[in-house]
Amino acid sequence: MKPTHIEHIGIAVKDLQASIKFYEDILGLKCYGVEEVKDQKVKTAFFKVGQTKIELLESTEPDGPIAKFIEKKGEGIHHIAFAVDDVEASLKGMESKGVQLIDKQPRKGAEEMSIAFLHPKSTGGVLIELCE
Amino acid sequence: MKPTHIEHIGIAVKDLQASIKFYEDILGLKCYGVEEVKDQKVKTAFFKVGQTKIELLESTEPDGPIAKFIEKKGEGIHHIAFAVDDVEASLKGMESKGVQLIDKQPRKGAEEMSIAFLHPKSTGGVLIELCE
Repeated sequence: MKPTHIEHIGIAVKDLQASIKFYEDILGLKCYGVEEVKDQKVKTAFFKVGQTKIELLESTEPDGPIAKFIEKKGEGIHHIAFAVDDVEASLKGMESKGVQLIDKQPRKGAEEMSIAFLHPKSTGGVLIELCE
Repeated sequence: MKPTHIEHIGIAVKDLQASIKFYEDILGLKCYGVEEVKDQKVKTAFFKVGQTKIELLESTEPDGPIAKFIEKKGEGIHHIAFAVDDVEASLKGMESKGVQLIDKQPRKGAEEMSIAFLHPKSTGGVLIELCE
């Protein structure tokens, strides 16, 4: 596997609207889309900065993964997504090297992308997503 | 302020050599430089992925900020650095909007860059660095 760029950085927030305001008014970025991903129990807001997107994530359910993350660690950076040519082949290659996977098969994420997460136990505490 | 791209993502690690091996062997990136930043009590390793660098950070002192971060939160993503044209002007603009700053003036970071950190209290828990 050879990632081409950082596709996005996921950031867990409590209040999507307040956070959009911060990224627009203070950081000078422009929110170009808001989308609900039911499968992940989140509402997301996207900003583009160079090649990379900032993806703000607000939980839509008290038991969703983002709600649990905030409960444990507080608001903040949640994951990094690397853009790769072939998620499925990358997963196979990693599994053969002993990397623990959250998703053994790619699934559909926000913006119709094919995605998969690696387990932070195998990556030095970093929740890494692969995107295609 | 209008950031042009994500300059780097800082990741706190316990063992720089083991982490370099992971980013090279598993993620397929290439470490192009290792540097000590005495001021921040860290040894850093850099990888390039598209426009963005991954900056691994190992503490050189038990009381350094990275050692304290790992003690509190474990290994993982530590900060995001936005590339801006003028760090000093960006800081002034943010301060006038009530953003709490860690650095009121730019200082010298790794790779001879002019840098400053914003306080996570003002940014929804995200440690944000500005780089020029």
